[in-house]
Formats: sequence, C-alpha cells, structure tokens
Amino acid sequence: MIKTDILIIGAGPTGLFAVFEAGLLKMKCHLIDALPQPGGQCSEIYPKKPIYDIPGFPEVLAGELVDNLMEQIKPFEPGFTLGERAETIEKLGDESFIVTTNKGTKHHAPVVVIAGGLGSFEPRKPPIPGIQDFEEKGVDYFIKDPEVFRNKKVVIAGGGDSALDWSIFLAEVAEEVSLVHRRKDFRGALDSVEKVEELSKIGKINLITNAEVVDLKGDNSLKTVIIRHKDEVRGEEEKTADHFIPLFGLSPKLGPIANWGLEIEKNAIKVDNAYDYQTNIPGIYAIGDVNTYKGKLKLILCGFHEAAIMCQSAYQRINPDKKYVMKYTTVSGVNGFDGSKKEAKREVVKNIN
Amino acid sequence: MIKTDILIIGAGPTGLFAVFEAGLLKMKCHLIDALPQPGGQCSEIYPKKPIYDIPGFPEVLAGELVDNLMEQIKPFEPGFTLGERAETIEKLGDESFIVTTNKGTKHHAPVVVIAGGLGSFEPRKPPIPGIQDFEEKGVDYFIKDPEVFRNKKVVIAGGGDSALDWSIFLAEVAEEVSLVHRRKDFRGALDSVEKVEELSKIGKINLITNAEVVDLKGDNSLKTVIIRHKDEVRGEEEKTADHFIPLFGLSPKLGPIANWGLEIEKNAIKVDNAYDYQTNIPGIYAIGDVNTYKGKLKLILCGFHEAAIMCQSAYQRINPDKKYVMKYTTVSGVNGFDGSKKEAKREVVKNIN
Ligand SMILES: Cc1cc2nc3c(=O)[nH]c(=O)nc-3n(C[C@H](O)[C@H](O)[C@H](O)COP(=O)(O)OP(=O)(O)OC[C@H]3O[C@@H](n4cnc5c(N)ncnc54)[C@H](O)[C@@H]3O)c2cc1C
Ligand SMILES: Cc1cc2nc3c(=O)[nH]c(=O)nc-3n(C[C@H](O)[C@H](O)[C@H](O)COP(=O)(O)OP(=O)(O)OC[C@H]3O[C@@H](n4cnc5c(N)ncnc54)[C@H](O)[C@@H]3O)c2cc1C
Repeated sequence: MIKTDILIIGAGPTGLFAVFEAGLLKMKCHLIDALPQPGGQCSEIYPKKPIYDIPGFPEVLAGELVDNLMEQIKPFEPGFTLGERAETIEKLGDESFIVTTNKGTKHHAPVVVIAGGLGSFEPRKPPIPGIQDFEEKGVDYFIKDPEVFRNKKVVIAGGGDSALDWSIFLAEVAEEVSLVHRRKDFRGALDSVEKVEELSKIGKINLITNAEVVDLKGDNSLKTVIIRHKDEVRGEEEKTADHFIPLFGLSPKLGPIANWGLEIEKNAIKVDNAYDYQTNIPGIYAIGDVNTYKGKLKLILCGFHEAAIMCQSAYQRINPDKKYVMKYTTVSGVNGFDGSKKEAKREVVKNIN
Repeated sequence: MIKTDILIIGAGPTGLFAVFEAGLLKMKCHLIDALPQPGGQCSEIYPKKPIYDIPGFPEVLAGELVDNLMEQIKPFEPGFTLGERAETIEKLGDESFIVTTNKGTKHHAPVVVIAGGLGSFEPRKPPIPGIQDFEEKGVDYFIKDPEVFRNKKVVIAGGGDSALDWSIFLAEVAEEVSLVHRRKDFRGALDSVEKVEELSKIGKINLITNAEVVDLKGDNSLKTVIIRHKDEVRGEEEKTADHFIPLFGLSPKLGPIANWGLEIEKNAIKVDNAYDYQTNIPGIYAIGDVNTYKGKLKLILCGFHEAAIMCQSAYQRINPDKKYVMKYTTVSGVNGFDGSKKEAKREVVKNIN
C-alpha cells in the first residue's frame, strides 16, 4: 500500500505543478498515470511543438515545459505509479481514500486530486482478432523501455509521428525494424519523414506500405505477424517478429472515474470554482482540463492556478487545527523534502566608515 | 485622448500578461502606471531576487520575469502612460469610460481593468519644509532617465538598495555624487554595500553618514542643500547641488481608486471570482493583488489566470454579437498587431516510395 498526503491522478502539467504547491505547504504527493511517462498531453501529443501562452515564456516546447516542471518539483520527491490506470476508489471510515489501479496497486491518502485532463490515455487498438491474448507477450502499445527491443525483430504499424519516430529510434537498437503502413503518405514532422525515407533506402528500416497487419501467430508469445498487401498479386506475407507495436494514437477516456459518484457535466467533473475546486465528494478535488465550471478555460496556465488554490484547501483538510500563513518563495525559499534548500541571497546590514 | 480596447491600470506582471491574453483575442491594450517603468512590485521592490513558484521556472529573477513578459507581449504593441497615477474615472452614456491621470492625460476605453497590486507606488518624502516647491525643479523621487544627471552635482539620500545602487550608477555619469545617510549602517546586497565603500575610498562617491538633508535652497530651481551632521561640532554645511534625490522607499496606496464607487474589502477590490473577476461596476474588472475574493492568494501565477479569464468576458462586452472560440496558441500561433507571426512548424504529409 502506497501512502501519501495527496494522491494525484494524472501526471500532466497540472498534476505536476500541484506537487510543487503542496510541497511548499509540506504535503507529500504521489501521482498515478496511465502513460509510461509524466507530462500528459504535452509529452504524449506535442512534445516538440512550441506553446506561446505560458506566462513568462515567449515560446517553450511542450516537452521542455514538462522537463522544467519535473526539475521544479524535484525537491519535493513525488512518487509515481506510471503505466497504470486509477480504476476504483473507496472511502474509509476516517474519511480517507483508497485508490486501486487496473494492475491492483493500492494507494491510501486523505486527499485525492483528479488532474486527469481529457482522461486516461488509452491506445487505439487495431481490429486484429485475438490481439489481446498477445498483450505483454509481444504486443506493446507504448514503449516504456526501448532496451526491451535490443537485438529483437520488431514490426511497427502506423503512419504518424509516433510510428516514424520510434522506427527511427529502434533502427539503432533492434535487430530488424519493419514499418507497416496502410498508405504511402506519412504525416509527421518533415525531419522525421525524411529520416525514415533515408533509413529505408540504406536498409535500416524495412518499409512496407499499402499494407496492413491482419493476424498474429505464436504460442506463449508472439512469433509471426501476417501482413496483407493491398496489391492482390502480392497477397499476404508471414513475417517473423518478436514484437508488434501498433502506434495508431491514443484516445483519452474519462473511463472509470466517471463511475466514482462525481457530478459530471460535458464529460468533465463539476467543481466549486468560487472557492477551492473541490468536487461534490468532500476530499476529492478536480483541477486542470478534467474539471468544469462557468467560464472554464482548458489552458495550462489555468491548471496552475487551480493547483495552488486547491492546495490551501487540502492543507486545511489534512491539518484542521493549523492555520497556514502564506509565505512568498522569494522571502522564505524552498525547503525540499530531500534536505535541499533554495533561497534568495540575504541582504546585509553593513557599516561603512 | 488615448483610445484603446482595454485600459489597464497597473503595469505589474498581472497587467502585462493581460496584454498578451487580450492580444490573442485581437483586443488592444494601454497601461497606466505611477512608476516610471513596467513590472510593478517585481521591478520596484525585488528585481534581483529569485522567485521559485512561477510554473515552469525552477528559479527566475523577478526582473527577468518582467523582461520575459515584455518580450512575450511585444507583438501586441501595448501603449504605456508611465509615471502618472490614474486619478478619476467617468462613465459615458455609451457605457465606455474616461480615465484621467494626476497629470491630466485622458484615456478612453470600453473596458477598464484594474491591476493595481497593492496600489499606486508613491515615494516616501522626507519632511523637509517646502520640498514640493522643488519637485521637477531639482528634486526627483524616481530616476527615469539617468542622462538627466550627466555632468551634474547630485545629492542622494537614503541607506537602502536604491540609494546604494543609484549612487554606484551615477558615480559614472554625474560630475559629483554625494550619498547622505542618517546612520553608518547600510542595508542592501553585499555587493552593493562593498562597491559603495570602494567608490567612496577612491573619491568617486562623497559619503556623508550620520547626517541628514534638512533644507533646500534655490530660486527657480535647486541650488544648494543644507546638510545637518549629528556631530554637533560639525553642525550644518551647505552643499551645491543641481539635483537632490531622496530614496526612502515607496509605499503603495490604493489611493484615488478607493473613491471610484467600487466595493472595497480589506483594502482590496471585491470581484466575482465564480465567473470573470468583474467588480460591482459592469465593465470594470480587477485582477492580481488588487482584488479579493474567498480564498484569494496574492500570487503572481494567480494574477495570470485571472487575466486570461477576464479577457474572455471583456471580449463579450466589446463584441456582444460575436462568439469567441478559444484556440490553442500551439495550433493557431500568435498573430502580432505589428504583423509578426509565430507558429509551430507544420506537420507534412509526405509520400515515401
Ligand atoms: C495539440 C495541442 C496543443 C495545445 N496547445 C496548448 C497551448 O498552446 N496552450 C495551452 O495552455 N494548452 C494547450 N493545449 C492543452 C494543454 O495541453 C492541456 O490544457 C493540458 O495538457 C492539461 O493539463 P492536465 O494536467 O490538466 O491534463 P493532461 O495533460 O491531459 O494530463 C492528464 C493525465 O491524466 C492521465 N489520466 C487520466 N485519467 C487517468 C486514470 N484514471 N488513471 C491514470 N491516469 C489517468 C492521462 O493519462 C494524462 O496523462 C494543447 C493541447 C493539444 C492537444
Ligand atoms: C519581497 C517580495 C517577494 C515576493 N515573492 C513572491 C513570490 O515568490 N511569488 C509570488 O507569486 N509573488 C511574490 N510576491 C508578490 C508579487 O510580487 C505580487 O503578487 C505581484 O507583483 C502582483 O502583481 P500585480 O501586477 O497584481 O501588482 P503589482 O506588481 O503590485 O503592480 C501594480 C502596479 O499598479 C500600479 N498602480 C496601482 N494603482 C495605480 C494608479 N491609480 N495609477 C497608476 N498606477 C497604479 C502600481 O504603481 C504598480 O506598479 C512578492 C512580493 C514582494 C514584495
């Protein structure tokens, strides 16, 4: 059982910044995310694209913003349960909560903050009969650790950025990389498309276009994939593969959280924006893209504000007898849970003769 | 008469960022500030100190944050009326407003946003009889343009950062710099105190401690200052001076705005935080440190959020018949009023053979 002060569901920019605000108030956080890496939409959908409306950044790449946030929260040592989806919640007699993931990991905390964005990112699975039987036995929808593919035969399917970028990356790692795509047109950054073209020419990527993976074979684990060419003359071919990685994008689903008894409106969680972004269940807050209220803007900068305000209320819930007096970071510095201390240089009072 | 879409009173971080959010919605802004430079508290009180809780910046100097914001809003060409205090407001028949400063400058806009922080920064004036008669005739409480002091005889009074830093700076510009301080102890950054000590030793700053300026003389403009030493034996001395710059700090005063008929609570302006940060007078909004509501945090990051939300409502007021559909900056880019265009590199669709 993982225990923490504030359990945050969703490690997007909003959830990450909440760790910092909680840390200033001496509350520890643990985050759950269905994705294998933190950063939410910024990391998963557009890491290499610039954002122009983060205050103080005339321009920042979404991936850089996430890196900066990770650096900023480091002193507060957040815990992470990644690659798992928060599935069920249970309220205990002492008003605390237990949240369990789809893999059975249990988390216990007095405050739960849902920072789930558009929902848990779930892979779009191709309609191949029996594909679920090969999940974690050769079929991967995410790449958590590229080392898994070292010296293996890998078949990637897809025609977008992820398929292009992972094909390029794994070309250096795997024994053989085949990229299967239904069309000849690829959609992605120009660099990536050109790189794949080049690697295909020198035989580092085995490019199979106008084709689809239609079947998987193996006993305990994947052995071969069946590829069907549009060109009827070529028909079907069977290809040896240790791994099949379909990268057809992710679609976010509010999913299990929709059944937690929270007030839902327009696929989002209603909160009390006139005070603390709490939901209809006391002790459960919702911040960032996942919440809704009159005038809501689904912007990153709004999630940051909501995180700061939420923490004040969470502090009162966790410490009903204490009164928190806000201090400026410039004046009081940042005292990390790891013993680190950041602070402004002190002024001196010095006698000049 | 200066005309604009949104008239912002206060050019602190909140007012500055509001220019950006308004610009995205194609509304032009003009800012009024009593200080000679933008940045509010960040520029005036702690420009060289680090802030740790701006999201995405593990550490940023307050002055750097202001520079970044100025860079970010540049494409939207804000106008500035600096060194003037917004004094009176008048509502016209068409529900628009005219705001007049203490120097008589008039501004006309359909929306007024008060981002006045703790109030208009007013200099603490020393109790020298008749000092007001020399204001703008040799007595300066702010330094707007250091060139004014080139080859002049300058007397600075004070014992804090501003007095130290301007003495150092003007030592290179003025013919003669005297620094008069009531005590021998100076309070400021160690660097600055040591630098003044060094410049005093080599005769670049004429350091006069345990003394006070008690009188000013001149006809049309300042000619001499009378300095009284604590040491009774030394008594009073008369010193030739083209400029006397008393730097005893600034104190913010809500001031004239308190009489505009706005609902005031705890020296701040009450707003509707459940929707758009509007005050009790339709068309006047209050954002940042100057407003108050249940759970208010006087943090820079909260001012940013309030600015974004306010702009949506201001847009509806200015364009009652249009419907604004929010677009991500990453997707739609930033189209400056100056013709500049920032945008993410487009994805390509490319055929690989
Ligand atoms: C192409 C694009 C461009 C954009 N441009 C801008 C822009 O310029 N400016 C701007 O402000 N915003 C922009 N946005 C929106 C911005 O990315 C979002 O506002 C932001 O990511 C929201 O952050 P969040 O932390 O609230 O949620 P998210 O980033 O969506 O993160 C939520 C996380 O929660 C996880 N999660 C949800 N439910 C569960 C569960 N049950 N169990 C486990 N994990 C779960 C998800 O997997 C996800 O990782 C853009 C978005 C896109 C797609
Ligand atoms: C030492 C110190 C450390 C701080 N540390 C932090 C920190 O770590 N994190 C954080 O988030 N915040 C911190 N703050 C607070 C932060 O600086 C304020 O929240 C922020 O400056 C508020 O921005 P603002 O734009 O709302 O108002 P301000 O910065 O106060 O700017 C308001 C401006 O409006 C002008 N004005 C007001 N009335 C009038 C008028 N009638 N006419 C003309 N001009 C007018 C004023 O002259 C001023 O320039 C700190 C403050 C101080 C003093």
